[in-house]
Amino acid sequence: MGRPGPRASPTKIMTQPSRRDLANALRFLAIDAVQAANSGHPGMPMGMADIAEVLWRDHHRHNPANPKWQNRDRFILSNGHGSMLQYGLLHLAGYDLSIDDLKAFRQFESRTPGHPENFMTCGVETTTGPLGQGLANAVGMALAEKLLARRFNREGFDVVDHRTWVFMGDGCLMEGVSHEVASLAGTWKLNKLVAFWDDNSISIDGNVQGWFTDDTPARFEAYGWTVVRNVNGHDPKEIETAIQTALKSEKPVLICCRTTIGFGSPNKAGKESSHGAPLGKDEIALTREGLEWKYAPFEIPAEIASAWNAREAGAKHEADWQALFDAYAQAHPELAAEYSRRMAGELPQGFAGEADAYIAKLQEDGPVVASRKASQMAIEAFAPHLPELVGGSADLAHSNLTLWSGSKDANGDDANANYIYFGVREFGMTAISNGMTLHGGFIPYDATFLVFSDYARNAVRMSALMGAHAVHVYTHDSIGLGEDGPTHQPIEHLASLRYIPNNDVWRPCDAVESAVSWRAAIERKDGPSCLVFSRQNLAHQPRDGEQLRNIARGGYVLKDSAGAPELILIATGSEVDLAMQAAAQLGEGVRVVSMPSTDVFDRQDGAYRDAVLPDACRKRVAIEAGTADFWRKYVGLDGAVVGMHGYGSSAPADVLFRHFGFTVDAVVQAARALG
Amino acid sequence: MGRPGPRASPTKIMTQPSRRDLANALRFLAIDAVQAANSGHPGMPMGMADIAEVLWRDHHRHNPANPKWQNRDRFILSNGHGSMLQYGLLHLAGYDLSIDDLKAFRQFESRTPGHPENFMTCGVETTTGPLGQGLANAVGMALAEKLLARRFNREGFDVVDHRTWVFMGDGCLMEGVSHEVASLAGTWKLNKLVAFWDDNSISIDGNVQGWFTDDTPARFEAYGWTVVRNVNGHDPKEIETAIQTALKSEKPVLICCRTTIGFGSPNKAGKESSHGAPLGKDEIALTREGLEWKYAPFEIPAEIASAWNAREAGAKHEADWQALFDAYAQAHPELAAEYSRRMAGELPQGFAGEADAYIAKLQEDGPVVASRKASQMAIEAFAPHLPELVGGSADLAHSNLTLWSGSKDANGDDANANYIYFGVREFGMTAISNGMTLHGGFIPYDATFLVFSDYARNAVRMSALMGAHAVHVYTHDSIGLGEDGPTHQPIEHLASLRYIPNNDVWRPCDAVESAVSWRAAIERKDGPSCLVFSRQNLAHQPRDGEQLRNIARGGYVLKDSAGAPELILIATGSEVDLAMQAAAQLGEGVRVVSMPSTDVFDRQDGAYRDAVLPDACRKRVAIEAGTADFWRKYVGLDGAVVGMHGYGSSAPADVLFRHFGFTVDAVVQAARALG
Repeated sequence: MGRPGPRASPTKIMTQPSRRDLANALRFLAIDAVQAANSGHPGMPMGMADIAEVLWRDHHRHNPANPKWQNRDRFILSNGHGSMLQYGLLHLAGYDLSIDDLKAFRQFESRTPGHPENFMTCGVETTTGPLGQGLANAVGMALAEKLLARRFNREGFDVVDHRTWVFMGDGCLMEGVSHEVASLAGTWKLNKLVAFWDDNSISIDGNVQGWFTDDTPARFEAYGWTVVRNVNGHDPKEIETAIQTALKSEKPVLICCRTTIGFGSPNKAGKESSHGAPLGKDEIALTREGLEWKYAPFEIPAEIASAWNAREAGAKHEADWQALFDAYAQAHPELAAEYSRRMAGELPQGFAGEADAYIAKLQEDGPVVASRKASQMAIEAFAPHLPELVGGSADLAHSNLTLWSGSKDANGDDANANYIYFGVREFGMTAISNGMTLHGGFIPYDATFLVFSDYARNAVRMSALMGAHAVHVYTHDSIGLGEDGPTHQPIEHLASLRYIPNNDVWRPCDAVESAVSWRAAIERKDGPSCLVFSRQNLAHQPRDGEQLRNIARGGYVLKDSAGAPELILIATGSEVDLAMQAAAQLGEGVRVVSMPSTDVFDRQDGAYRDAVLPDACRKRVAIEAGTADFWRKYVGLDGAVVGMHGYGSSAPADVLFRHFGFTVDAVVQAARALG
Repeated sequence: MGRPGPRASPTKIMTQPSRRDLANALRFLAIDAVQAANSGHPGMPMGMADIAEVLWRDHHRHNPANPKWQNRDRFILSNGHGSMLQYGLLHLAGYDLSIDDLKAFRQFESRTPGHPENFMTCGVETTTGPLGQGLANAVGMALAEKLLARRFNREGFDVVDHRTWVFMGDGCLMEGVSHEVASLAGTWKLNKLVAFWDDNSISIDGNVQGWFTDDTPARFEAYGWTVVRNVNGHDPKEIETAIQTALKSEKPVLICCRTTIGFGSPNKAGKESSHGAPLGKDEIALTREGLEWKYAPFEIPAEIASAWNAREAGAKHEADWQALFDAYAQAHPELAAEYSRRMAGELPQGFAGEADAYIAKLQEDGPVVASRKASQMAIEAFAPHLPELVGGSADLAHSNLTLWSGSKDANGDDANANYIYFGVREFGMTAISNGMTLHGGFIPYDATFLVFSDYARNAVRMSALMGAHAVHVYTHDSIGLGEDGPTHQPIEHLASLRYIPNNDVWRPCDAVESAVSWRAAIERKDGPSCLVFSRQNLAHQPRDGEQLRNIARGGYVLKDSAGAPELILIATGSEVDLAMQAAAQLGEGVRVVSMPSTDVFDRQDGAYRDAVLPDACRKRVAIEAGTADFWRKYVGLDGAVVGMHGYGSSAPADVLFRHFGFTVDAVVQAARALG
């Protein structure tokens, strides 16, 4: 298939492709796919191809035939705009990603979307593009590996033993989240994490000298990383030497690779013009000439394809591991079964029964506690059955109430470590959680004040987009936070978290709903849950068995009217008790609907939804100490909302609830004003 | 008033209070106010009091009688939970903040809220509490000072010449935003920025060794800062020496102060228990004893009050500056007038007329361009009249189209510098904008893709909470972004930005609305505006004079029905033209409402709103390529929404618009389905 040409060296290529030839295969897959799509980013793949070649062909342990092999190395493209580099690697290595898939780059429903999406493409470990978060996910994966190894490995049985490789660019390093997670990786001594910095001096606006003058190697040394400086990112020998250093490090490793963006393009190499647009037909022709690449677009000569193909090596990697694991299962059957259960994402047998019993008992006992306390009680009840439940708080452990009696610091030596002190790093924390759940073996939770979900917001969105099983715990859910004032009082956060697609937000009204929300978050496998809890005590609500079961449907009739409802009060969280008290004053025609999760309620069938909120009853009042407008979806133009219309204020909570109109009287008045 | 006691040294106190005595005044104001409120953070004020004493009494140039004196030094408490330190300083220095104000700490509508709020308390430069952002605001202020000095100072007339002092704690340094802005401050060589790190080894969860092991001095040196290491934060001489070093630096300065949180508390000093809760009566008594503070709560002996009072010195500072400025005004009358105009936040005379003319001409010309291009055209039209319009993009200049023909890099020597290359730092960029507008002299704008407003979200909220005049420009406003895929396609962002109180969001439908939105953002002084623009071309819409004027009301009838409307189509941005085309098919009874800003529309009087959306007409269809549910507010339970219900996808934009149902047919069908 290799066709001779005036400058080619067909014999050499036919017999033994050079490393540069192999890297050029990546370059031209990227160049040609971007050109075909008339959209995309050729510069990064052209710049990092030589690094990728050394890493993937000589070090990356994976099995293209089984992208889910549990002990594979993880490869993360944090500079996700260079997605064609990853697609080229996956294709050449022998993953289920054909040349036709590459030709469909950036086309509707193709397996080669604009940025790597783990739900679209096998072999893609996480979805990247939003800069910095790939590195953060990788830190989560490396932490997961470390904790699993500590828990499951035994003398002679390193069944958990893999690396996490990261490619990242200047953009990732400018983003604040890189600071948060690199700091934690250093503290945690994640020595199996190796990041390659594509140090090409170019970002979209041009040469970074005008806006990025950090001494990045010194910065990472300050985090406690091993830094390999001044590696020529186009010299395989230097790259190999750097990786050898990395393999011996007892700390996370940054390999600083000087590269040329758009390497090989005579007129665009080293320039931002190669970053985010096709090179163009003429420049591609010149690049082919310059790099002596004689092949048509999407044509890979057999000997190059063969040199790249990793299926045989991958099968052996996995077989070797499987043999080890089988022996381990013989020697340590319980550990092996537990490891397999956790990696499969299955809950322990009996969990559902334990949860049922706990929730039923809570309903009977009726504790009057803050829902953040009820959350801690739920963790205390569930976590002993769930060693995979691992998490922590962004330096608010005693406010978020995330610590429980069995908490053991992950930054120590305990084999059962399950608690993470994230420090004041909400964004990094959340993206690390995403990485842990993507790795497998964990149901991670993270926690902060609800208002500071803002800091983490895009990581919450990414968990929802990826359908990642993560639990985001947010306490201090309203003006009920009190004296800390409007900077700390969430208003729009409930509504705007609910608007993130595939994100289940829960705001429970008492200890029972709190426990149900935790259970839902644990059992939900195809996306994240945000559990939103109060600072202040909440009354206990009475329920019969059906009501208790219906909590899990997101919304249910907590107190029914005599006959068809004349008026429906809809409330969440701390405002449910207000609704119950108002209903008592408003008479028998009033129904109270508790709506802990609008997201879950909206997924119920139409018959159930209509049974709870019959279309015929338009006298509806929604009550929530958050953005009022959100509730128009349920009360329409003719209903009323007792909600917030602006910021809170610094004062004791009870003063604020009165001032902002969250009183029984105000609810009664709003209802009566409907006529 | 100083009462003798067994261990006191009344003579010494009566004649010449020691520096420690003076610092103790701050400590006890904090201790006693927190105790009185039964809520708050005494540990930080007790730890940083000695630093504050040296800084405020010997270096901070300000005038308590005129907190708005333009050339004052700016003092920023980035660790805002220590608010009582700032209130104590303001009170003792002689600001309009009485001892009764301090006694009302954290009470409703007091001038001493839980965290410093610049809209509640004179002398507070910015609102802090959300960690890291105070430092970011300070970087913006220091940049503002530098740019104004370059523009206005003349030989012998350094009329702009002040410092920006920052107090910050471990929490600020853990937050990612500290990385973004410290990096920029280093690149920009903001040598008048001096930050004091309260290095007390304690954060809320305890000793930071478990989660914060950065070599912070090395990290800041990597950013290009001058770092003064190992300063004993309780030794005034060492603090003084450090400040002297800072005054000579040609780079921003970090002074690393080792301190003891809760200094002086026998049982809580050095412990997290002093951080966020009152010390308690007994411990306070012990602390009084240990620090030999013989005074009752809120009692400040006269000689200590006198030593702190800065009114005389402040009056002199301002008078000296005023004399200089008067002479400057003689020598450079135009510059002085321009400086005064800009610092007063007044637009140039004639701006309104220029804007009117530009907008009228656009309506006549009817260019068909992407609204991001229309945004650039508006900048091009307005910026020559507005030297205070200074901003840039987070490394997306050529996508956001924020550069214009008069752009001059702020990181250079040009006296008319007006363009900022922020690098890939959305959060830091936005918080820096907030700092610039709070400083005065600028209308800052910042820009990124709409989806990455997520990264900046809490800074957008802070600009809205503070009522800060900033302009946040967001392009690539929908699935119309196309091939980059769902990580880059905003869905919930429009709705959730609109839900931030006091944040005006605009999504214009053509070049004319784009220009009007820019004008509104420029003219709005009491809060931020988010201007949301398309990647793709948008049709021009016809308007008469009244319609043209009504754009500024946020929503208006773009095409009216014959007679009272039978059906109303409400749309924004790229979907307005769809609505217009659908209306043409649906017949004469259809009204089309263009709603570029729901926030502004909602502020109009009821008569206007009802005239645009008459209550009687309930057949309403809203069309927006964003979260559908948001529009229930306008269409109620009986209307329909053509909107997004999940994530987008990677494909060319036209494919996506068809796939997700943004077609004339779909709108027509949705309308007809209403019956």
